Amino acid sequence: MSDHVYKKVELVGSSKTSIEDAIETALAKAHKSLKHIDWFEVQETRGHVVDGKVGHYQVVLKVGFRLE
Amino acid sequence: MSDHVYKKVELVGSSKTSIEDAIETALAKAHKSLKHIDWFEVQETRGHVVDGKVGHYQVVLKVGFRLE
Amino acid sequence: MSDHVYKKVELVGSSKTSIEDAIETALAKAHKSLKHIDWFEVQETRGHVVDGKVGHYQVVLKVGFRLE
Amino acid sequence: MSDHVYKKVELVGSSKTSIEDAIETALAKAHKSLKHIDWFEVQETRGHVVDGKVGHYQVVLKVGFRLE
Amino acid sequence: MSDHVYKKVELVGSSKTSIEDAIETALAKAHKSLKHIDWFEVQETRGHVVDGKVGHYQVVLKVGFRLE
Amino acid sequence: MSDHVYKKVELVGSSKTSIEDAIETALAKAHKSLKHIDWFEVQETRGHVVDGKVGHYQVVLKVGFRLE
Amino acid sequence: MSDHVYKKVELVGSSKTSIEDAIETALAKAHKSLKHIDWFEVQETRGHVVDGKVGHYQVVLKVGFRLE
Amino acid sequence: MSDHVYKKVELVGSSKTSIEDAIETALAKAHKSLKHIDWFEVQETRGHVVDGKVGHYQVVLKVGFRLE
Amino acid sequence: MSDHVYKKVELVGSSKTSIEDAIETALAKAHKSLKHIDWFEVQETRGHVVDGKVGHYQVVLKVGFRLE
Amino acid sequence: MSDHVYKKVELVGSSKTSIEDAIETALAKAHKSLKHIDWFEVQETRGHVVDGKVGHYQVVLKVGFRLE
Amino acid sequence: MSDHVYKKVELVGSSKTSIEDAIETALAKAHKSLKHIDWFEVQETRGHVVDGKVGHYQVVLKVGFRLE
Amino acid sequence: MSDHVYKKVELVGSSKTSIEDAIETALAKAHKSLKHIDWFEVQETRGHVVDGKVGHYQVVLKVGFRLE
Repeated sequence: MSDHVYKKVELVGSSKTSIEDAIETALAKAHKSLKHIDWFEVQETRGHVVDGKVGHYQVVLKVGFRLE
Repeated sequence: MSDHVYKKVELVGSSKTSIEDAIETALAKAHKSLKHIDWFEVQETRGHVVDGKVGHYQVVLKVGFRLE
Repeated sequence: MSDHVYKKVELVGSSKTSIEDAIETALAKAHKSLKHIDWFEVQETRGHVVDGKVGHYQVVLKVGFRLE
Repeated sequence: MSDHVYKKVELVGSSKTSIEDAIETALAKAHKSLKHIDWFEVQETRGHVVDGKVGHYQVVLKVGFRLE
Repeated sequence: MSDHVYKKVELVGSSKTSIEDAIETALAKAHKSLKHIDWFEVQETRGHVVDGKVGHYQVVLKVGFRLE
Repeated sequence: MSDHVYKKVELVGSSKTSIEDAIETALAKAHKSLKHIDWFEVQETRGHVVDGKVGHYQVVLKVGFRLE
Repeated sequence: MSDHVYKKVELVGSSKTSIEDAIETALAKAHKSLKHIDWFEVQETRGHVVDGKVGHYQVVLKVGFRLE
Repeated sequence: MSDHVYKKVELVGSSKTSIEDAIETALAKAHKSLKHIDWFEVQETRGHVVDGKVGHYQVVLKVGFRLE
Repeated sequence: MSDHVYKKVELVGSSKTSIEDAIETALAKAHKSLKHIDWFEVQETRGHVVDGKVGHYQVVLKVGFRLE
Repeated sequence: MSDHVYKKVELVGSSKTSIEDAIETALAKAHKSLKHIDWFEVQETRGHVVDGKVGHYQVVLKVGFRLE
Repeated sequence: MSDHVYKKVELVGSSKTSIEDAIETALAKAHKSLKHIDWFEVQETRGHVVDGKVGHYQVVLKVGFRLE
Repeated sequence: MSDHVYKKVELVGSSKTSIEDAIETALAKAHKSLKHIDWFEVQETRGHVVDGKVGHYQVVLKVGFRLE
């Protein structure tokens, strides 16, 4: 990595099923426009509630990718 | 939401199976006494360990609901 | 717990499948050398990305155990 | 204050006009059910956006009041 | 603790004598209305000053109790 | 919001008149190039001082918008 | 600014009318004894409550000024 | 407090006997040069260790006083 | 200290009587296996509650010692 | 700066030689695509280790630039 | 240190060459008016950018000195 | 890294010359007893002051290494 420069962007992914799936949702979206995505860092985990149950999870994450 | 006021309370849910299930446990309990629960925010994730395995997950979360 | 002293160590567990599994991986490793592990606290959740998907989760956690 | 005990509750007030008004909205609501409110502490300031303008401010605040 | 749900409330206890006594003051008050108080966590320690001496300590703490 | 992905960008708006106006300045600028702006979160409030008065407010905020 | 050294002091300004006015109150006071005040940073926003309304705002701010 | 401006300074008091005594030590010192000291806020509690025992406590605190 | 390297370990001491005693309990334990303990830093203060009173204090602290 | 809006992006620069050089590496990269870069803020300093020595430093920084 | 009281002040030093030099610049300035300076703690590292290069580093530090 | 478990330990390195050298001092010490050191994270940068100059830098860092 010695000469590389990376950028981090902050995304919010959501999912009705799990925290992991919300992360994958955000990564899949990022993958459409960004090359060289290398890592993610979860910032916050939250969600909406419907009738006393999780309606969907919302995971705020930073996604790091190498700049060309 | 323009005139509404929301309140947040802090709960700890637990589960033997997963982080998501611990969140659901807390929400189900809150749902019994609170109307209009709208969102949650995870504050901490921790748990007890038994014989080198997770005995149960404990998730500290804030639960937001609209005041009538 | 009144006269006990506990120690916390910081570990990073990883897993290709889930956050919970990464926690279990770290606990299983700690269990090999530490007796009396009592609780864990998640510090950070992050991971590596391969082809726009989670390659593996990395969970940084503190593990607390009683000193004899 | 020497023998008093205070409690803090966390509220979210909202307003279309200003941060100060969102604080007043939350305090007015709290005042209906709580006596002896003494102070507030702003935790977060945020808001919804409509057509590139602030739709309403949302101020998360802790409200402290003396227990009888 | 596996199926239990806990709630945390935030209190401020005060005392003219010590930090420990301010904690006990808050717990004694909470004990009057809450059953099953299980733990506390100190959030802030502060106090008022009179003539260059501590007039009283104020300890902000979270008190955790099991919901029935 | 169940399948949506949001992005947050960090902006600094400024204004000679008020904190609210500095927020609006940043949102107006963001609105020129970003569609679907949904919320903002204030990160820091600061400003420059001229002759012992506020020269202008600078509000650092995160702006969240839905990715198409 | 290359050779300059700045100092920051922490002040609390108050106002019955607004957050901005509380900031100006603190700056006006600081201006009486400090030359070269250059910027401020808001640390906390809080206030006293009287009859369910804001009695006065209290804004904790750091004020930066150049040392001669 | 409506028109007052307060200043906070950061001090470190020490004591061989207790945390409370370290706070009193710092306040007594501050009282020699500052009028109108009104409150303190503990920032950190630490200390030196001699032969496996506390040699002295060091308490970092902010002291707030009214400017004339 | 110019060539020395120090290590910090995180311990939790407990006591039925006071915060200071919980610190001493942790230091006494650490002293049995570590030479050259030099300082401690309190990270958290918490405790268990029994019948509305402090059952025991738990103080999380970092203990710093010189490596030989 | 009164009417300007700034944006902050988060970058990670690396260098085999020093923290300062890692900052310059990130700025040089940013300079290729962004005009009007005005300031940076270091967020984290870390690095990779090879054979008990720093292999390269990694500095996470925010870079602020004026939007046209 | 048992009976001493220390004060911390917050300074910003700057330098065109390095972070270390910015620290020295602030200390040299403080040394002109303060006796018994004993330690410093870096709070933030930032800087201005000119033509895609560091124009000067700005290091915010707390400086601790013993009160007589 | 998929099945690996890492541990982080917290060290304080010191140096009379630079921040980088203080980091290297800590890593060199750690390298004597730990295999597989992989990364470090700077936690705090501070130092002692002698005659208004840096006597030595003290860098608190976490060192991560793979457990076998």
